[in-house]
Amino acid sequence: MKEQKYIGIDLGGTSIKMGLVDQKGSLLYTLESPTPENKEFYSVINTFDGMVDRLLQENGLEWKEITGIGVGAPAFFDLKKGEVVEAVNLGWHHVPLMETLMERWKLPVCVDNDANVAALGEMWVGAGIGATHILCITIGTGIGGGVIINGDIYHGANGSAGEVGHVTVRHQDGRLCNCGKTGCLETEASATAIVLDAMDKLKHLSDGPLKEAYDKSGTLTAKMVVELALKGEPTCKEIIQKAGKVLGRSLAEMCYLLNPELIIIGGGISYAGEMLFNPLTEAFYQTAFPRVAEDTSIVPARLGNQAGMIGAARLVHVRVNH
Amino acid sequence: MKEQKYIGIDLGGTSIKMGLVDQKGSLLYTLESPTPENKEFYSVINTFDGMVDRLLQENGLEWKEITGIGVGAPAFFDLKKGEVVEAVNLGWHHVPLMETLMERWKLPVCVDNDANVAALGEMWVGAGIGATHILCITIGTGIGGGVIINGDIYHGANGSAGEVGHVTVRHQDGRLCNCGKTGCLETEASATAIVLDAMDKLKHLSDGPLKEAYDKSGTLTAKMVVELALKGEPTCKEIIQKAGKVLGRSLAEMCYLLNPELIIIGGGISYAGEMLFNPLTEAFYQTAFPRVAEDTSIVPARLGNQAGMIGAARLVHVRVNH
Repeated sequence: MKEQKYIGIDLGGTSIKMGLVDQKGSLLYTLESPTPENKEFYSVINTFDGMVDRLLQENGLEWKEITGIGVGAPAFFDLKKGEVVEAVNLGWHHVPLMETLMERWKLPVCVDNDANVAALGEMWVGAGIGATHILCITIGTGIGGGVIINGDIYHGANGSAGEVGHVTVRHQDGRLCNCGKTGCLETEASATAIVLDAMDKLKHLSDGPLKEAYDKSGTLTAKMVVELALKGEPTCKEIIQKAGKVLGRSLAEMCYLLNPELIIIGGGISYAGEMLFNPLTEAFYQTAFPRVAEDTSIVPARLGNQAGMIGAARLVHVRVNH
Repeated sequence: MKEQKYIGIDLGGTSIKMGLVDQKGSLLYTLESPTPENKEFYSVINTFDGMVDRLLQENGLEWKEITGIGVGAPAFFDLKKGEVVEAVNLGWHHVPLMETLMERWKLPVCVDNDANVAALGEMWVGAGIGATHILCITIGTGIGGGVIINGDIYHGANGSAGEVGHVTVRHQDGRLCNCGKTGCLETEASATAIVLDAMDKLKHLSDGPLKEAYDKSGTLTAKMVVELALKGEPTCKEIIQKAGKVLGRSLAEMCYLLNPELIIIGGGISYAGEMLFNPLTEAFYQTAFPRVAEDTSIVPARLGNQAGMIGAARLVHVRVNH
């Protein structure tokens, strides 16, 4: 088989990542650019164009050597039309993403939700190799989920399957979520939630590493909390462990319905490693009864922030080859 | 195409229902027999045999005119082997159901969990015609669920997908469930829960239709509560409406993960009609945000207690014809 080359694009609210990927899922080259500040559709498309040109040039490639391009975006899609129905972080409503790109590029183009695309990437060459029923959770500013069933992205009735960030996990005194509800999984266990938890704790701290880190930088990030936790700071450890417990219980509840072979957990917080995964798996197996839980493994994602690019390339690789 | 005839068997803890079904899903003939009191595997198989003989005789059919036999049972299955791993209500552990029946009957035999089989029946000729992603809930003594994805039963990693009776819906002061947890959906909204709710209310009633009905019969059943509710008895109405609300909220939480086109609700309680479905759908659309809920319809089951027989026949019909 002739070697095929794909471009995978991971469009985010703050940056655009683009990768050159071969038909085995190897990432040959990457570049990154900030998302245009106005986030306007044609500004983004023009940024794509500039990045593609650079990618081709720096790799000595011509257009005709690219088999197809895939795009993952933080959006609800109408997949029949390839249209972004709504992308809150980009301010897009009813934008004909796939059609516009196909007309411009004259190549096979596939688009899908970023969490679905990440799940697909992990299944292709990451933590999900060989599995057929997967729930892939990405813990970032929010919590996204992608569902793989029988080896394919499962979209559900209208593409919103896997929106697990908004299941209710705290039934009293939960924080208000962007979605309008309170106590959603993403208000309790996302990177944002971890920072808010740490800020709450700070109020009661007069010294110690967490207070010092905050005083020094004037801010707190989830990365700082994870790093302090890994160094043994007890308040940060407690916050990460609590997030693990909340995630574990919530994933167990999901398993009654979905009974996946594999749950893959990615996003920056997953770098906390055992400190997150131990309470998570403990809560998981305590909550789901044995028959439901016994054939489900919980593993960290392997592709890190490359999952989006690789998965986007896989979207179009599957379309072209099957 | 030559006319095909199938036998569908719905094995329950108290009765065995058997139906003769044609290749269009029409139920031509049914018979029912109590489940043997000892529930012993070979007693059940012998009962099947007697029922099949009677079915053939009363319909003037010979063995060779039956294309295949399907069986639904309240059990966790190892579907590769067709083995019952565990059937609590029958006291069966690791029983080679499919193999035994195939050896005995020399016909194609398919087996599956009763809730899955009911979902399949509803999709074939009931409330789910034309839908491809379905969640089918049966509210009885417990609450069972079957998941249909891309037009097929979705089993998950080990056949326990759709075990939605055990998602937690009450996080404080919930009743103890058979599964060992508290506050499961089936301890809060099943027929059993409705009876327990009514018994609780009875303690505070000195007269009225509920008290009279109980005093007269010396017991309460979910059917009695539904009937009194439909006649306007306020305590019973409140109980049914509460069950509807609990179900609606819980189904909404499931939709974030599964985003089905259709939710089918069956079981005796569903005969309460609007009294159950109005609070249920109201709670559903309040809990799931619009994008997740807007393409999901909630409808009552259509096949009643025939869903098991028809779905069991469909299991083997699909196997033989595809």
